[in-house]
Amino acid sequence: MSSPLVLVLNGPNLNLLGTREPEIYGRTTLADIEAQVRSVAHGHGLAIDFRQSNMEGELVGWIQEARNSAQGIIINAGAYTHTSIALLDALKAVGLPAIEVHLSNIFHREPFRHTSYPAQAAVGIIAGFGALSYELAVAAMAKLLKQREA
Amino acid sequence: MSSPLVLVLNGPNLNLLGTREPEIYGRTTLADIEAQVRSVAHGHGLAIDFRQSNMEGELVGWIQEARNSAQGIIINAGAYTHTSIALLDALKAVGLPAIEVHLSNIFHREPFRHTSYPAQAAVGIIAGFGALSYELAVAAMAKLLKQREA
Amino acid sequence: MSSPLVLVLNGPNLNLLGTREPEIYGRTTLADIEAQVRSVAHGHGLAIDFRQSNMEGELVGWIQEARNSAQGIIINAGAYTHTSIALLDALKAVGLPAIEVHLSNIFHREPFRHTSYPAQAAVGIIAGFGALSYELAVAAMAKLLKQREA
Amino acid sequence: MSSPLVLVLNGPNLNLLGTREPEIYGRTTLADIEAQVRSVAHGHGLAIDFRQSNMEGELVGWIQEARNSAQGIIINAGAYTHTSIALLDALKAVGLPAIEVHLSNIFHREPFRHTSYPAQAAVGIIAGFGALSYELAVAAMAKLLKQREA
Amino acid sequence: MSSPLVLVLNGPNLNLLGTREPEIYGRTTLADIEAQVRSVAHGHGLAIDFRQSNMEGELVGWIQEARNSAQGIIINAGAYTHTSIALLDALKAVGLPAIEVHLSNIFHREPFRHTSYPAQAAVGIIAGFGALSYELAVAAMAKLLKQREA
Amino acid sequence: MSSPLVLVLNGPNLNLLGTREPEIYGRTTLADIEAQVRSVAHGHGLAIDFRQSNMEGELVGWIQEARNSAQGIIINAGAYTHTSIALLDALKAVGLPAIEVHLSNIFHREPFRHTSYPAQAAVGIIAGFGALSYELAVAAMAKLLKQREA
Amino acid sequence: MSSPLVLVLNGPNLNLLGTREPEIYGRTTLADIEAQVRSVAHGHGLAIDFRQSNMEGELVGWIQEARNSAQGIIINAGAYTHTSIALLDALKAVGLPAIEVHLSNIFHREPFRHTSYPAQAAVGIIAGFGALSYELAVAAMAKLLKQREA
Amino acid sequence: MSSPLVLVLNGPNLNLLGTREPEIYGRTTLADIEAQVRSVAHGHGLAIDFRQSNMEGELVGWIQEARNSAQGIIINAGAYTHTSIALLDALKAVGLPAIEVHLSNIFHREPFRHTSYPAQAAVGIIAGFGALSYELAVAAMAKLLKQREA
Amino acid sequence: MSSPLVLVLNGPNLNLLGTREPEIYGRTTLADIEAQVRSVAHGHGLAIDFRQSNMEGELVGWIQEARNSAQGIIINAGAYTHTSIALLDALKAVGLPAIEVHLSNIFHREPFRHTSYPAQAAVGIIAGFGALSYELAVAAMAKLLKQREA
Amino acid sequence: MSSPLVLVLNGPNLNLLGTREPEIYGRTTLADIEAQVRSVAHGHGLAIDFRQSNMEGELVGWIQEARNSAQGIIINAGAYTHTSIALLDALKAVGLPAIEVHLSNIFHREPFRHTSYPAQAAVGIIAGFGALSYELAVAAMAKLLKQREA
Amino acid sequence: MSSPLVLVLNGPNLNLLGTREPEIYGRTTLADIEAQVRSVAHGHGLAIDFRQSNMEGELVGWIQEARNSAQGIIINAGAYTHTSIALLDALKAVGLPAIEVHLSNIFHREPFRHTSYPAQAAVGIIAGFGALSYELAVAAMAKLLKQREA
Amino acid sequence: MSSPLVLVLNGPNLNLLGTREPEIYGRTTLADIEAQVRSVAHGHGLAIDFRQSNMEGELVGWIQEARNSAQGIIINAGAYTHTSIALLDALKAVGLPAIEVHLSNIFHREPFRHTSYPAQAAVGIIAGFGALSYELAVAAMAKLLKQREA
Repeated sequence: MSSPLVLVLNGPNLNLLGTREPEIYGRTTLADIEAQVRSVAHGHGLAIDFRQSNMEGELVGWIQEARNSAQGIIINAGAYTHTSIALLDALKAVGLPAIEVHLSNIFHREPFRHTSYPAQAAVGIIAGFGALSYELAVAAMAKLLKQREA
Repeated sequence: MSSPLVLVLNGPNLNLLGTREPEIYGRTTLADIEAQVRSVAHGHGLAIDFRQSNMEGELVGWIQEARNSAQGIIINAGAYTHTSIALLDALKAVGLPAIEVHLSNIFHREPFRHTSYPAQAAVGIIAGFGALSYELAVAAMAKLLKQREA
Repeated sequence: MSSPLVLVLNGPNLNLLGTREPEIYGRTTLADIEAQVRSVAHGHGLAIDFRQSNMEGELVGWIQEARNSAQGIIINAGAYTHTSIALLDALKAVGLPAIEVHLSNIFHREPFRHTSYPAQAAVGIIAGFGALSYELAVAAMAKLLKQREA
Repeated sequence: MSSPLVLVLNGPNLNLLGTREPEIYGRTTLADIEAQVRSVAHGHGLAIDFRQSNMEGELVGWIQEARNSAQGIIINAGAYTHTSIALLDALKAVGLPAIEVHLSNIFHREPFRHTSYPAQAAVGIIAGFGALSYELAVAAMAKLLKQREA
Repeated sequence: MSSPLVLVLNGPNLNLLGTREPEIYGRTTLADIEAQVRSVAHGHGLAIDFRQSNMEGELVGWIQEARNSAQGIIINAGAYTHTSIALLDALKAVGLPAIEVHLSNIFHREPFRHTSYPAQAAVGIIAGFGALSYELAVAAMAKLLKQREA
Repeated sequence: MSSPLVLVLNGPNLNLLGTREPEIYGRTTLADIEAQVRSVAHGHGLAIDFRQSNMEGELVGWIQEARNSAQGIIINAGAYTHTSIALLDALKAVGLPAIEVHLSNIFHREPFRHTSYPAQAAVGIIAGFGALSYELAVAAMAKLLKQREA
Repeated sequence: MSSPLVLVLNGPNLNLLGTREPEIYGRTTLADIEAQVRSVAHGHGLAIDFRQSNMEGELVGWIQEARNSAQGIIINAGAYTHTSIALLDALKAVGLPAIEVHLSNIFHREPFRHTSYPAQAAVGIIAGFGALSYELAVAAMAKLLKQREA
Repeated sequence: MSSPLVLVLNGPNLNLLGTREPEIYGRTTLADIEAQVRSVAHGHGLAIDFRQSNMEGELVGWIQEARNSAQGIIINAGAYTHTSIALLDALKAVGLPAIEVHLSNIFHREPFRHTSYPAQAAVGIIAGFGALSYELAVAAMAKLLKQREA
Repeated sequence: MSSPLVLVLNGPNLNLLGTREPEIYGRTTLADIEAQVRSVAHGHGLAIDFRQSNMEGELVGWIQEARNSAQGIIINAGAYTHTSIALLDALKAVGLPAIEVHLSNIFHREPFRHTSYPAQAAVGIIAGFGALSYELAVAAMAKLLKQREA
Repeated sequence: MSSPLVLVLNGPNLNLLGTREPEIYGRTTLADIEAQVRSVAHGHGLAIDFRQSNMEGELVGWIQEARNSAQGIIINAGAYTHTSIALLDALKAVGLPAIEVHLSNIFHREPFRHTSYPAQAAVGIIAGFGALSYELAVAAMAKLLKQREA
Repeated sequence: MSSPLVLVLNGPNLNLLGTREPEIYGRTTLADIEAQVRSVAHGHGLAIDFRQSNMEGELVGWIQEARNSAQGIIINAGAYTHTSIALLDALKAVGLPAIEVHLSNIFHREPFRHTSYPAQAAVGIIAGFGALSYELAVAAMAKLLKQREA
Repeated sequence: MSSPLVLVLNGPNLNLLGTREPEIYGRTTLADIEAQVRSVAHGHGLAIDFRQSNMEGELVGWIQEARNSAQGIIINAGAYTHTSIALLDALKAVGLPAIEVHLSNIFHREPFRHTSYPAQAAVGIIAGFGALSYELAVAAMAKLLKQREA
């Protein structure tokens, strides 16, 4: 039997990771995170589809496609976290378990970053641990998928 | 003389219609709606260009192109209804008669869905009747175009 | 078998229609609208009870009476749209399918007209098409009643 | 030639004047005010139609009727000043010069009394002088009507 | 010596009680409540004048008349609770002890029902106990009137 | 069979009753109220556990313990009414019928006292009648417990 | 016995009257208004001290000096109406009867002009009648001074 | 060398876990969570000091004491999350790495639960995973402590 | 004759003074402040009862007890300054002259620290001078008590 | 060596002190305060430059000049406290230690007086003690200057 | 033919430029800016009238005088940008082309500096370039005046 | 040595320039602006990369690419100015000097256009001068680049 697939989505500007405001996000690149995620996922028997886009609509499309291909979604929607009702609607529409992650703690930043649309459709949120946020999300997803299976 | 063309635009996640939160949107698919719209439009002597996109910018582009090809616009901007000033600007720029439609009644839903940017550039709004919202909009558009002609 | 009866309610100042701010509402009188509504309704096999009142309480009373006499309600509550919780409560209490109509597009006007209490109890809302808003509402009501029958 | 007629409207609870919270409104009754208004109006060559109602809809109706019978409106809408969009719409619809009066200074009272819907359709507002507010309004109306005549 | 008279006022839609949203208001009718109120009042040596109106202005008028006929007022202003400054003014003007009652707990419902204008002129408020709210109010009124007498 | 037990909780500063701002709260002491409550409760066949604390956490703890010892809760949370989500959570957690009481009418006081967290978990609210608020609450609780029994 | 003196204060930009936005303020100059005010005042047996300043502090100073020289103050504070707590404090400090006037109806203009600090210390407010606002204020002041005398 | 000690703090009503609103929090008890936390911590070489209090001040005190005894803090402040500036100050004062956990996703609940004071002093936040939130927090804390050591 | 006693209350986390965010509060400990306060008080002939608690309810209780033992209260409520209506009520209830002190200037910090409940019951407020704030408060209290005596 | 000079600034209407709303400000005149300030300052070895102006711009100018002549500023900006960003900028620009004083406790007054622009540039604030506020400020300034010297 | 004259106005505290918060405004003095402005203006064939005042009213007066002497206005209103409706009114009254300049980018600073009254009457706004903002404004003004001439 | 490259970005609907709401934006086309920009840039020794997109994500991508190819960015984000946190993040991430331009003065338009996310990462803003806004931005950019070089 093949491993359950988890779609890991990264929103706008996350491709610049490691070069961008390191005092907030650290020096780890998105490729570093992808490698860590794949390694942790492997340990949990999960396969990973890891993507990044600066396009709100492309992120919406990837979520929609996940209906037929993935068992869960981990999403760091970046700046769209605070403005995208379309992402919220997409997550609600596909009905897969979703986990919101953030590298930084959104409550440490500007007030317009203290809210989240996707969180309203996510099982839970993990924020503030840098790349570790993603690793914890993979571990949580593995548990969620095992529970659903049972 | 050829039939007047009406551009019918559908925003993010409407391609999932029929699978997505059926207790709010029903089980009709977007293809079903397109068929109904074409049928009603035919009765009114109107041609239909029916499109869907998850991309705000693509919707903006289609509205812009309508200047040279269409006589009117019917738009269900989905989640972008509540956040897209760009769609409002596009509708104002092309100056075609526009009608906003919604499957559900926006006043029954979360407060952040009670507002509309495109409505500020539309002749009118029809919301809450499911696929019938589109049919009524086609009938209204037929009347508007006949009045302008006169 | 007799035709289903639809109560068409008109709120304060709508009796002045055609004389009042024609740049917003046009020159059609309420009698003109009533005639159009009756004609369209006849085509749909519906009977119409068409009324106007400047009194919030009288409108509430007419909605209450509709429980025993009508199958649906079309309501243009005029200025009470934005202030009357009593109309909302009356519509919820009688439980008949209701459609809110407006001659003008409420999103084109002052901010205090962008909200609606009755809409919270209505199936849908049609606004901005002048007298045509009523005709579309009659067509929509005919569909709604046929569906319920089925 | 007959004297121009001015409709003087008094809203809810003004019939209790002289008995009601005298520390705010004084001991003058509405009949006293009517007498003063008639006397001052006579001096200006104006006829007066002086009315009071606790019914928002009745006040709306009287404003509507004034279109055919009166040349100006003086209105103390009482508590409806702060909540009645219907009165605003009626004043705009009839298009007669209107003056808003208040016995007390609305800026001395609770914040919810600091706003006025009818004022948005009135030429001006006179507040805080007790019965004298009405007398000043009559004098102002006489001037306004003379100017329009010219 | 005759019994003190208490005016019990009921606002819009309360005449539909028992048929209207029973999951919120229960199945007791207004006639049932009147009977209970009369029975309890009789035990306290109070006479009851029990009325209902959908008209804000009529309710204002009844409060005004109570000055000369009643010793206290119990009021369930229904939807007008949240919008009627006129009722507040009327209660302040007549100066009788007043008690506000509600069948449901206003803090369980929509935010626009969490406020009350009449409460600002009432001795106290009793809400959430269904018909029992009225009975408790009669008991409280009996105490209040006895204290004033003393 | 033993009498049902009702926990009557009093929040911060209520122990000063009778000495504290008598123009708002009167001269009755908390001991006086306890005596009245016991007397009324006895007439209804109810036992009373009457307590006061200035500690939010202690009030939370007493509500929790009531799960195993009491059949209902009457709570005057004093200043914590307007700030304590913890009290709301405790009341929801124990699931006993609860009644919120206040000596003064909260709508007569500063705006920050017009809200209540515990009310969101209470059956109803009785405010403004001084010590009588408690007596009415006991009567209401007796009715509620009898209904549940039935 | 000498005539009572009324200080008539005009705030910033009122010296430009007649040249400034005539569609809002008309073509009358401040000198025209002064002449009208003097003429009307003379008829009421009042002397006038008519001044204009663009300086908030100078207006404050003139109000202070009025304590020893004038019997009343008529003030059109112009733009300072909406921002000057210092003018409010000055009016309260001198304790003379004050009347606020405006040429235009402040409720017809931008929302930031719908409020007034000086109005909180004024007997009343007269707005929207152009130069006539001042004449009515003089008449009102004459009455107020006569009443105080009595 | 002894294991680093992590203080795991639980706020008001968490002692009722498993009995309280199971549709939100599930049936796991706080003792169950403590057992899971200890087991996971043991695997990471961490010792655990697990406590619960309904007292805001006691939680503040325990945080203060941790300065001298613990290397990190995991805190589920329950209802105090949304109201306690004192907890925020305590966390900032002791300067230990802190992680905020919640059983439920705070963005799924009432708006007054969408904010967090302690989060402003925490490294990160993990919410929505039930007891798993705690386990993930222990894993995160282990990583944080190892990094600091390095 | 014995010296008047002044209760000096310190709220949550002030016991950590000198160790906590020294860039805001400096390195002085609470014991240092107590010593300075006692020394200054001695010079003014005042006795001092100096206390600290992290418990809101304990602070409330100490204020209550001061009715019988102290002549004045100096209070630094720390984080409770911005959230505790209970402290406000306690201060109003005991009626002793109270002075609010803060080490830092609350207007330099986060917006949620710009308000104060206890200040509404205090004679005055002294903030921003570190330990000197307390010394100035003692001097002020000495003056206040001397005035009352006179 | 000459004494350090402290500029004591008084804003609009403070020249009326002793005549103005004595129930709020007492009967002490500004000259009385100046005398007290000079006397206290003399005891601390400070020279005083004591000024009052109703002009915001003049106060700004005096603050600017203080750069070259004074060592500290004590400011009671009166009504400008709540509206003057210019005073805030001036204080920040000159960089001298500044202390804000008020005769009354700003938290006892209207909400628009609960804020302060100058406080954002001041070391501290002393409010509510009448003339004593100034004396305490002089004592505090003496301390501050001595610390800076050290 | 003489050169067109441009009035360059500088508001409160700008005279301190170069000494004041150099990390925000740089070390250039206002005299430096004047020299640069004159030099650039000379190149564009414009004459310059360069002024600074700390007085809102004086700035208003200078704008008024410009009607008869200048062809355009460049204004850096400093702190009055965010509070002065009087400056807005003056600019609207004189009707000359106006350009708002700022040394710093107002969107980088406190929220109360993100708004501008004068901008509502200005052709455009240039902010954030230090002294260069003025030079660009001179260039823009030259273009505007040339266009008007044409 | 090659000329420094400046990326000039144009957001949604700017491709319609010259056809779109000419009363607000004039009749100049985007090609006209490009030509003017190139001409001015040439004079300053700058090369230009001039682009337009209706896609928020494409604009984000172009900003990211500029890191490796351009020395500065001039951006007119159109409608995305008021809604795009992603553009703000991109500008902060690449760290190039950026200038925000607008054809119209955003303070003349609807309130939702008075804010800007990109401005928070831009050196400065130039708005209201039509195509000239771009030319001024090029001149400013030339100066900024020369300064950085130095």
